[in-house]
Amino acid sequence: MTVRFGLLGVGSIGLSLVNKLDPKSYELVCAVDTDPSKAGKTVRDLGGPPESDVEVVQALRREAATACDVFVQTTTSRFESAYQDLVKLASWGCDVVSTCEELSYPFLKYPELSSALHSVAQDSDSSVLGTGINPGFLMDALPSFLSTACSDVTAVNVTRRVDASRRREPLQRKVGLGLAPETFKQMAEDGRLGHVGLFESCALVADSLGWSLSRIDQNIEPLLAERDMRTNYFKIPKGCVRGLRQTAVAKSDAGEISMCLEMAVGTIDLDEVRIEGQPTIRYRAEGGVHGDAATVSRLIYGMDVAPVLAPGLLTVLDIPTSRSLRRQKGVRLEGNASRL
Amino acid sequence: MTVRFGLLGVGSIGLSLVNKLDPKSYELVCAVDTDPSKAGKTVRDLGGPPESDVEVVQALRREAATACDVFVQTTTSRFESAYQDLVKLASWGCDVVSTCEELSYPFLKYPELSSALHSVAQDSDSSVLGTGINPGFLMDALPSFLSTACSDVTAVNVTRRVDASRRREPLQRKVGLGLAPETFKQMAEDGRLGHVGLFESCALVADSLGWSLSRIDQNIEPLLAERDMRTNYFKIPKGCVRGLRQTAVAKSDAGEISMCLEMAVGTIDLDEVRIEGQPTIRYRAEGGVHGDAATVSRLIYGMDVAPVLAPGLLTVLDIPTSRSLRRQKGVRLEGNASRL
Repeated sequence: MTVRFGLLGVGSIGLSLVNKLDPKSYELVCAVDTDPSKAGKTVRDLGGPPESDVEVVQALRREAATACDVFVQTTTSRFESAYQDLVKLASWGCDVVSTCEELSYPFLKYPELSSALHSVAQDSDSSVLGTGINPGFLMDALPSFLSTACSDVTAVNVTRRVDASRRREPLQRKVGLGLAPETFKQMAEDGRLGHVGLFESCALVADSLGWSLSRIDQNIEPLLAERDMRTNYFKIPKGCVRGLRQTAVAKSDAGEISMCLEMAVGTIDLDEVRIEGQPTIRYRAEGGVHGDAATVSRLIYGMDVAPVLAPGLLTVLDIPTSRSLRRQKGVRLEGNASRL
Repeated sequence: MTVRFGLLGVGSIGLSLVNKLDPKSYELVCAVDTDPSKAGKTVRDLGGPPESDVEVVQALRREAATACDVFVQTTTSRFESAYQDLVKLASWGCDVVSTCEELSYPFLKYPELSSALHSVAQDSDSSVLGTGINPGFLMDALPSFLSTACSDVTAVNVTRRVDASRRREPLQRKVGLGLAPETFKQMAEDGRLGHVGLFESCALVADSLGWSLSRIDQNIEPLLAERDMRTNYFKIPKGCVRGLRQTAVAKSDAGEISMCLEMAVGTIDLDEVRIEGQPTIRYRAEGGVHGDAATVSRLIYGMDVAPVLAPGLLTVLDIPTSRSLRRQKGVRLEGNASRL
């Protein structure tokens, strides 16, 4: 069974995905990107695999899309920007797996649009899933999963620290590398800087715990270089921005969810989840989890499970715990296994 | 909505469970234990909550069982010992959540019995789930879940180290505390010692990765005291057994799964999962995850999701990632959340 898929967004993540997929199992049949400089080029021309002679087009078309089982959207962080394409694809009966950060939990910020999209997807028997690694895994799905081994949870605390110098240019740009502190402040206020997703991660964790949130407070602050620094893409003069620290605190009657995301040059990679309950569980990944590779892996996972998902607008809490439900019934094993 | 439940096995885990559950949401209606010394006593007499005047009976009876939505079985590690009760409960339309270690993945060791139980449960619209913390979470469900963020997985490595002195008497007994090394060896060969579940954990992880295993090799070795030691329950003379180290290695064409479980007096608590893939993910819980409290929490989780499970013989890979699928649509939030 070959999965026929389309790309909406032929950027770095989309290309990594196509390069990783086995073309015998996954056939790229359609590629869309609004960037005029990409139009007419093949996916191979843009850095895809040698056999990818699919030509990039600038707009979604029904015929091409309906030839796909699933579409992978990697175009935007904002639900409102993704919305029209999502409605189109869902109404055409295409499943969608998307890295759109706000799509990971759009129900709180956009209740009406979420309902509308959910209805369209249900009516057309298609599923729409926002996934990725952050939001969508490290700061939400993982703590939610771990919390199933705890009772009486009173607090969830998640930390992610990312060495920005090891990441792609767009991430380095969005954390403000090299900016003067005042510029950073202004751009953060305008929403042109920073990570989108802490709000959604808090909402996902609250949902998984059955908590009704009364408020979510977020903060974003620059981290400043104490000496001249540089990355492959940016120069950071002493006193300018080497990255950021973003926090969110969500409150409910049952307890508190707090998230801290630091992405900066000079930061040591780390991921940590702490759940206060019975028992208290703390898991820590020294060296962190590399975001780009893991995002691609989660997209592939989303593509793999899409056929078995219920139709509608779904979250990472609604998808199976693992890829395979196959039973190895009757497999004969060697070794001393059965005896112990 | 009150969940009406029964206990099959009124031992330490069963009693911890009843003591933790809110009686407004969970009503104990039936308690069964084959131990004649418990017969006729109330669950309160045995250490349950003050309001528990349910009387312990020695055998499952259809009338009492059909009054339950779900039964919690904590009687045995062995699938064959649990089997008759599981068939009865399933055929009566009762969902079952069980700590039976071999039930966490019975398909390889007991293909015929598994098929038979699966059919009974499907025909009666009931679900049967083996869960707990080990097997059922730390060494299998968690690595399976983490692997959804990896591609090209070549190896999964799981370590659990438990300070046996902090655990209950039955665990201290099953790791051989205080035995002479020769006695340990004989008892291990007879299957009267050691942890049951590494085989099942390997099989669960393999299933989640879609790997067909060719063999599983297990080993069990005693750890010996270098000085006189003692716990609340056992004296351990120098040279005698302070615990054990159990390993399992499972092989497939795609890669290898290895598990190491150490449970001993003097061991420092630790849980660790390492998945070699793209990216490689390593999560570590210094201080470990306390088994008894987490087992009870996982049982409650199993009870909570039982009504939404498909009928049949299920595994922890078949249950939802998190407890709640509720959407907090239209909740009004304070704070500066929506802006960022």
